[in-house]
Amino acid sequence: MTQKTVTAGVILIGDELLSGRTRDTNLSTIARWLEPLGVQVGEARIVADDDDVISETVRAFSDRFDYVFTTGGIGPTHDDITADCIAAAFGLGISERGDAIEMLRERYDLSELNAARRRMARIPDGASLIKNPVSQAPGFQTKNVFTLAGVPSIMRGMLPDIEHRIKGGAKVYSRTVTAKGIGEGDAAAPLVEIEKAYEGVSIGSYPFFNAELRGVNFVARGRDEVVLEEVEGRLRALVAGLME
Amino acid sequence: MTQKTVTAGVILIGDELLSGRTRDTNLSTIARWLEPLGVQVGEARIVADDDDVISETVRAFSDRFDYVFTTGGIGPTHDDITADCIAAAFGLGISERGDAIEMLRERYDLSELNAARRRMARIPDGASLIKNPVSQAPGFQTKNVFTLAGVPSIMRGMLPDIEHRIKGGAKVYSRTVTAKGIGEGDAAAPLVEIEKAYEGVSIGSYPFFNAELRGVNFVARGRDEVVLEEVEGRLRALVAGLME
Repeated sequence: MTQKTVTAGVILIGDELLSGRTRDTNLSTIARWLEPLGVQVGEARIVADDDDVISETVRAFSDRFDYVFTTGGIGPTHDDITADCIAAAFGLGISERGDAIEMLRERYDLSELNAARRRMARIPDGASLIKNPVSQAPGFQTKNVFTLAGVPSIMRGMLPDIEHRIKGGAKVYSRTVTAKGIGEGDAAAPLVEIEKAYEGVSIGSYPFFNAELRGVNFVARGRDEVVLEEVEGRLRALVAGLME
Repeated sequence: MTQKTVTAGVILIGDELLSGRTRDTNLSTIARWLEPLGVQVGEARIVADDDDVISETVRAFSDRFDYVFTTGGIGPTHDDITADCIAAAFGLGISERGDAIEMLRERYDLSELNAARRRMARIPDGASLIKNPVSQAPGFQTKNVFTLAGVPSIMRGMLPDIEHRIKGGAKVYSRTVTAKGIGEGDAAAPLVEIEKAYEGVSIGSYPFFNAELRGVNFVARGRDEVVLEEVEGRLRALVAGLME
């Protein structure tokens, strides 16, 4: 049984991420949520609040990946331009939708639903809404693109209403062996041998290095858990040998 | 006196960032370090350990931005392919360099300098080295591309040897006004008015939202500190009005 690899692209939208003022956490949340569904993130881009760049990136990623996730830019202020960019990317119209207004009404009185907040109900034609149990303003799905909030707690709240829309592929499992106090360079040659011995397994070597601690995480990834178990044993033996 | 806008692209390399196992912090470090030098990050991409994608991204960013920074993939193991990808991106040769070996010798005895560690001295032709005071293996500059380590403490250590190579442009300053307990939607219309009243100023609205706290950061960015001072006053008045 061979399952195909299913991939996702992630587009993180917002000047504040590029200025360094905010550090993104959404990519890691999305990647870890996708992993057990059998979807691997193939690339992520952090783009400015720029119409053309957002639209072009959405279009390119929609062609290149099975699924695309965007985060950010769907609030009520003038710098929230993602919905319009998604519509432009696919040549779709965009307008205020009754079902989205209903969702906003769970949160806002009619008096609070000013023009700015109504903008959060502007949805590209044909998109299906994604529920937002945290702050109500919905995300939406346009073709294979899921458009989510940027605030991490709100973004996380939208994921449950996406799960049933995802058709995953082969699950990729990973095993990590941590080696404290050894140098990556001493493990390099045997690592290649181990990787070569097990088809379909890739091994990454991730050093850490700070005032207190120096070492390496060896991460083996593959689709067959039985094989990975064996690889983990080899890695443990390698580390034990280097520590002698 | 009008100074031009100088931009940078950042390429974060590594499967571990896309799997969500590691959260990047280098983008924010680089962006904040560039800001006072008068360089703004225009886009960042997080790419897999894939030769073609890395080379193409480097080539595209080198054309599009004044400076490019790559992080990750310059260690001694088989998954460290960045140097080769940079060489391929520009059609350059690559070979072990004596000056890079000298740097490694500060850390390693000849007996420790095995084939894997010597790989860290493979540098694209014509590149100039970037000192690494933390773990000695150098980064390097190829045209307008700076190739740095992925481990945050090592990456940070390389920045001082880059500063003198950067010709920055107009500095962008920012002022932040935090409003706790107000809704973004109530500020949306006046925000647009304030932004329109001050040419060259852009205002971002960044909500935060968690169990304890709800509110918005309004961030005004621009090149003229005197103007920004005035904008900050307007934003404070707006927030005070909304809190009444």
